[in-house]
Amino acid sequence: MQNLLQNDDTIIALATPQGVGAIGVIRLSGKEAINITNKVFKGKDLTKQESHTIHFGTIRDEDNRILDEVLVSLFIAPKSFTKENVVEISCHGSNFIIKQIIQLLIRKGARPAKPGEFTKRAFMNGQFDLAQAEAVADLINADTEAAHNAALNQMRGGFSGEIKKLREELIHFASMIELELDFGEEDVEFASRDDLKDLVNRLLTVVNALIQSFDLGNVIKNGVPTVIAGKPNAGKSTLLNALLKEEKAIVSDIAGTTRDFIEDEIVIGGVAFRFIDTAGLRETTDAIEKIGVERTQAKMKTASMIIYLFDLSQVDIVEMNKEINVLENTGVPFLKVGNKLDKVDEALVEKLQHQHPDMLFLTAKEPGHVEELKNRILELVNLNKFKRGDTVVTNIRHYDSLLQTKNALMNVIEGIDNQVTNDFVAMDIRQALHYLGEITGEITTDDLLANIFSKFCIGK
Amino acid sequence: MQNLLQNDDTIIALATPQGVGAIGVIRLSGKEAINITNKVFKGKDLTKQESHTIHFGTIRDEDNRILDEVLVSLFIAPKSFTKENVVEISCHGSNFIIKQIIQLLIRKGARPAKPGEFTKRAFMNGQFDLAQAEAVADLINADTEAAHNAALNQMRGGFSGEIKKLREELIHFASMIELELDFGEEDVEFASRDDLKDLVNRLLTVVNALIQSFDLGNVIKNGVPTVIAGKPNAGKSTLLNALLKEEKAIVSDIAGTTRDFIEDEIVIGGVAFRFIDTAGLRETTDAIEKIGVERTQAKMKTASMIIYLFDLSQVDIVEMNKEINVLENTGVPFLKVGNKLDKVDEALVEKLQHQHPDMLFLTAKEPGHVEELKNRILELVNLNKFKRGDTVVTNIRHYDSLLQTKNALMNVIEGIDNQVTNDFVAMDIRQALHYLGEITGEITTDDLLANIFSKFCIGK
Repeated sequence: MQNLLQNDDTIIALATPQGVGAIGVIRLSGKEAINITNKVFKGKDLTKQESHTIHFGTIRDEDNRILDEVLVSLFIAPKSFTKENVVEISCHGSNFIIKQIIQLLIRKGARPAKPGEFTKRAFMNGQFDLAQAEAVADLINADTEAAHNAALNQMRGGFSGEIKKLREELIHFASMIELELDFGEEDVEFASRDDLKDLVNRLLTVVNALIQSFDLGNVIKNGVPTVIAGKPNAGKSTLLNALLKEEKAIVSDIAGTTRDFIEDEIVIGGVAFRFIDTAGLRETTDAIEKIGVERTQAKMKTASMIIYLFDLSQVDIVEMNKEINVLENTGVPFLKVGNKLDKVDEALVEKLQHQHPDMLFLTAKEPGHVEELKNRILELVNLNKFKRGDTVVTNIRHYDSLLQTKNALMNVIEGIDNQVTNDFVAMDIRQALHYLGEITGEITTDDLLANIFSKFCIGK
Repeated sequence: MQNLLQNDDTIIALATPQGVGAIGVIRLSGKEAINITNKVFKGKDLTKQESHTIHFGTIRDEDNRILDEVLVSLFIAPKSFTKENVVEISCHGSNFIIKQIIQLLIRKGARPAKPGEFTKRAFMNGQFDLAQAEAVADLINADTEAAHNAALNQMRGGFSGEIKKLREELIHFASMIELELDFGEEDVEFASRDDLKDLVNRLLTVVNALIQSFDLGNVIKNGVPTVIAGKPNAGKSTLLNALLKEEKAIVSDIAGTTRDFIEDEIVIGGVAFRFIDTAGLRETTDAIEKIGVERTQAKMKTASMIIYLFDLSQVDIVEMNKEINVLENTGVPFLKVGNKLDKVDEALVEKLQHQHPDMLFLTAKEPGHVEELKNRILELVNLNKFKRGDTVVTNIRHYDSLLQTKNALMNVIEGIDNQVTNDFVAMDIRQALHYLGEITGEITTDDLLANIFSKFCIGK
């Protein structure tokens, strides 16, 4: 029975990143994975070992030359990631060795895996649904806590669970309506139109909430586009560097695990803030006095938030109000920051505090002064509403399917209101079911699958 | 007993390269490796499992939040790489996840490993000797077949075996001499001076052969420094590109395993040829006519071989002989190549062939024309003498120790010839033993070990 799950062809790929490391892991999956490995492995007979065991030995080529000393891990179907026989070969982390071993195993009957093919097989064999499979890729790419939590929640079935609940309720109602169709001539009503409308409205509420969560999901996945603006010499670079510096210290504290450092991205409270180049703004900051310079505003409007710096040592109240007016006109949430606190007397600060109770006062170049700023930034984007375990849509494909679902559900409501016949209502419900099913992969096409998995890396 | 081997502190590091991959492997080693992992692992009780088994579960932080779904591999002392308890955690290949898990395990009692610390522990616990430990690093860095074979041979004890054999013979003789010292007053001769001299001469032959193999070892490890020279428009770039193009096609044939491509390195017959920038030569090629321009010659002399191109369509016999004269004066092996064979008639080729039977004729831009060139290049560096399994010294530390050994052995011979007393001869023999022992690590100092392992990558 379990052999039916397995593909006749056995795929192979490097599962670990390329580059210099102590070890590399080569992964095979398919019915012949263990047999093929056994042909080149000198040590125990791998075909006679139990699942989830590890075996030391050498890999030898056709001339009995040793390519490497390795550890081979065995996963016997269906107790593996792909539910097929899986072998993982842990070898020395040399590109030369890895290439030699993969080429040898290809000569022995394996074939190079396509991007995402291991995960695709796991999906095809029912290890998880499509949304969960997609979360695997998101999880690997997640580099902030929020993105990681959203992906992990999705991988562990959180999002799929919600979609499935919606789908089941709809299926239940759809079956009633289809039943009515069968009895069409007799004018029986199994499903009350009011009940259906209530259900669809309830579903719409959930679908709308999911659709709205995509804004947040997008921010979680891709970072909050942020502008730091202000007049020349207000201290924009100093502030950015102060924020970056702290993060650099954090990311480099564990030797060997520093992540790629993105020069203009800062992680605060587990969320990435992506700083939009404000060079354009700097050039035209004088123009802000003239209010309404479109280019400046356009730039600001692409951001999800603006941190606007005032140089306290150069304050001009009239001008400050003009600048704030410009900020308000952008419609983008913004934070007023009074910089160079160390250069002014308390009287001025008190006066400004009175006029602008929400202004934050600090000295960007002083260590520790950015802590409060970080809190305020987090407050402004209001990410507190996202808690671990919350379901957030982060995938544009899911977002599209939800929009289509919403349209279909609206059509159902409209149909009921206009008293259209059952077969039309049934058709719209089936449409909604179709789009919901696309998310979790109950409904798929080869094109859809190819498109999804081609975005994965090879070896996953 | 086996617990004595284990360090009380448990070290942790990422064992796979950084970057995007399907999986990452985190490695722990030390007495508490399994206990520490068990604190954060939800699944089976890891402390109750057998060695060489794999367990699926989740890693959870102090707030019971899931960091990832993982596979944990257990290696119970002394059946592991370090002979200590070793745990390998295979997680999703996200830098964020890897960092989170490592930080969590550090909070639970592990500490970040220093570079090479896993291998150092393996050495300290007698898994292998020092030369073998050093070969692990060489193996990882090997990117040609020859370098790989040399490192693998050394890792598997080939080189150590030869050193140990030498050492044992010396120790045998040393013990005889020391015995004589004990009976010093009685004028007993346990060790014949002639026999000792024979032995030392025999050892010197082996030591000299190993010392001489370092030239080859260096070439195997670092590539053959090669110059392509010739007058402007002789086709130097075309030839280099033709060689590179073939290799590019080879290295990219297995998706996902392309190695870092070094723009000016070509692998022929498993050996790397490193091309020295000949820009300087190009500038001054006209000067070759004036013979003896020092800069050009100096550049050529840094190479282990020169490929010198002649433009057949512009041949001037007198000038050609001048150029060849310059080449001969460099003392570096060189290859005469007549390029643009397609542009000249057979008569010229026959004439040149008669004058220079060793000249190779080709058209660099024609596909396939570089095959014969490759054979000739390999012949020229005479790497055929290196066969798989041959012992070749590739490590400069070993080379230095061998030179010191040689000096000490020469002193022994000199002492015998000058009929010095036994205690002086014994001292020189002990010196030789000391230097040989340094190679395999029978004699070590903390400084020496620190120096060796600091060159390893973290996680190895």
